Amino acid sequence: MGGLTVTSSIKSFGGTLHKLSHDSTSTGTKMALNLFIPPAPPREPIKMPLLVYLSGLTCTGDNCAEKGFIQPHAVKYGIAVAYPDTSPRGAGVEGEDKDWDFGTGAGFYIDATNPPYDKNYKMYTYITKELPALLKEHYQEIDTERVSLMGHSMGGHGAMSIYLKNPGKYLSCSAFAPIANPVACPWGQKAFTGYFGPPPPTSSVESPTPSIWQQHDSTHLIKSYPQDTPMAIKIDVGTADKFYQDGQLLVENFEKAAREAKWGEAYVEVKKRDGYDHSYYFVSSFVKDHVDFHATFLLGVGQRRPDGLVVGEGAYQV
Amino acid sequence: MGGLTVTSSIKSFGGTLHKLSHDSTSTGTKMALNLFIPPAPPREPIKMPLLVYLSGLTCTGDNCAEKGFIQPHAVKYGIAVAYPDTSPRGAGVEGEDKDWDFGTGAGFYIDATNPPYDKNYKMYTYITKELPALLKEHYQEIDTERVSLMGHSMGGHGAMSIYLKNPGKYLSCSAFAPIANPVACPWGQKAFTGYFGPPPPTSSVESPTPSIWQQHDSTHLIKSYPQDTPMAIKIDVGTADKFYQDGQLLVENFEKAAREAKWGEAYVEVKKRDGYDHSYYFVSSFVKDHVDFHATFLLGVGQRRPDGLVVGEGAYQV
Repeated sequence: MGGLTVTSSIKSFGGTLHKLSHDSTSTGTKMALNLFIPPAPPREPIKMPLLVYLSGLTCTGDNCAEKGFIQPHAVKYGIAVAYPDTSPRGAGVEGEDKDWDFGTGAGFYIDATNPPYDKNYKMYTYITKELPALLKEHYQEIDTERVSLMGHSMGGHGAMSIYLKNPGKYLSCSAFAPIANPVACPWGQKAFTGYFGPPPPTSSVESPTPSIWQQHDSTHLIKSYPQDTPMAIKIDVGTADKFYQDGQLLVENFEKAAREAKWGEAYVEVKKRDGYDHSYYFVSSFVKDHVDFHATFLLGVGQRRPDGLVVGEGAYQV
Repeated sequence: MGGLTVTSSIKSFGGTLHKLSHDSTSTGTKMALNLFIPPAPPREPIKMPLLVYLSGLTCTGDNCAEKGFIQPHAVKYGIAVAYPDTSPRGAGVEGEDKDWDFGTGAGFYIDATNPPYDKNYKMYTYITKELPALLKEHYQEIDTERVSLMGHSMGGHGAMSIYLKNPGKYLSCSAFAPIANPVACPWGQKAFTGYFGPPPPTSSVESPTPSIWQQHDSTHLIKSYPQDTPMAIKIDVGTADKFYQDGQLLVENFEKAAREAKWGEAYVEVKKRDGYDHSYYFVSSFVKDHVDFHATFLLGVGQRRPDGLVVGEGAYQV
């Protein structure tokens, strides 16, 4: 753990967006993040739950904070929102700045095992361990035991794979246009080759033991997700999304695997949005649905909470 | 008039954001703009009214389209929104790219009279004449006779000064952190010197004839605004706005002039927003209030329209 620098604090929809930076023990670099705290945190001993938003390729924690429009809905429910960065920056690893879809800005939310990326590219540990510990230390009003995950594109892969790797740990998961089957798409194959090494040998018979690639692929992870554990995944993808059309997202593969694993629409909901693209114009258009969804699990919408407040009443109305 | 190129059309909140460009007769340059058309335009012969959003220094029509969040509220009311650019670009006028607060990106929504800017820097004519004529020709669903103005910073000056120069023409006007008294602040003095020539001589007695500078200054324009004409101006400014603190906005001068001209709060509403800054985090936090305000004048909220629709019912709910 250690220090946290508040670079600035900006008022937004009645709450405050804190621009933070700290020296990360996971990545060995300085990491920046945004943290949105809604106004009037619930009275003690009730703390506010946390939604972690994972961004896509080339993005930082700023894109969604500026363009995603989560804040007004988070204010309505009293949910804190963390917008971490997408990768280490300035780690000095050879080749990390060569391509826009690998290395800097493209951490894929995994712990790399392949040199030279295995030292700094530890975004899985950063998101699952260091970030909640950091917030717990510095923001006592946040309940880091009640956390849900949301993500876009590469961040959708991040949200889904982290959720599925940790059954029961996160309360819900949602994704916009996620890279849902990275072992089978160009973006994922390039990233996994760099971070984990060459592709695993293919065989006509599926191995009972998942390869290291499959261990980080949501479409494979859902096959072994325990049936006696809560499941709540919501996915939206636009039909005019060029990356979807080009086979980078493969949401249909994930949906098929979910149905084969007997997870119905009540547990894994996938919606195709007619005419929407891959941009934040798409994300912002449906973000209210996603925050409503997470609030159901993080708070219990419309239900009386232990402190007597009725969730959703009297708050900022959008 | 002439051709209009649709560069792309992006779905947003159920409507469509068209990215457009055309050769402008006013500026002699190619001009880009964004136009948001909400879904399900009202049935003939009812056309949708238009809200024109004017951006601030260094911005283009993209900033607010991405970060302002006007769209969901415009969808609710069935109002089209135009986001024009802030200046000519690539006019080739000597010195236009030297500073960020003058020339390119800083057109100030006036018609320059001072060489060499008098040929291309005709943003007043562009916004008041060319833009509505262009939209009327190409988008028959828009009623270019029912138009309101909104703006931010330099664009707040643009919205207010254009509104006050044309009594009764625009149905309402609103501004976020406007440059409300440009003749008395560094930004305005620099721009007006460049676009109109040296400052007018000062005298201890106020001249009955406004100088060319004063003719483009909202704080002066409101003094001679006819009392028998409708007036509807709404202004928000953040108390943590550094430019406000530095005396670039001078909203208090405008408010004083409005009150002295007997325009009360029902006509000229000025709100200080505690702790908000100058950014789109501020604009987006209060944009719903502004669209609600404009809808009152553009549509008559909650009233039955001639086509039988009740405004605000059955539309996209945010």
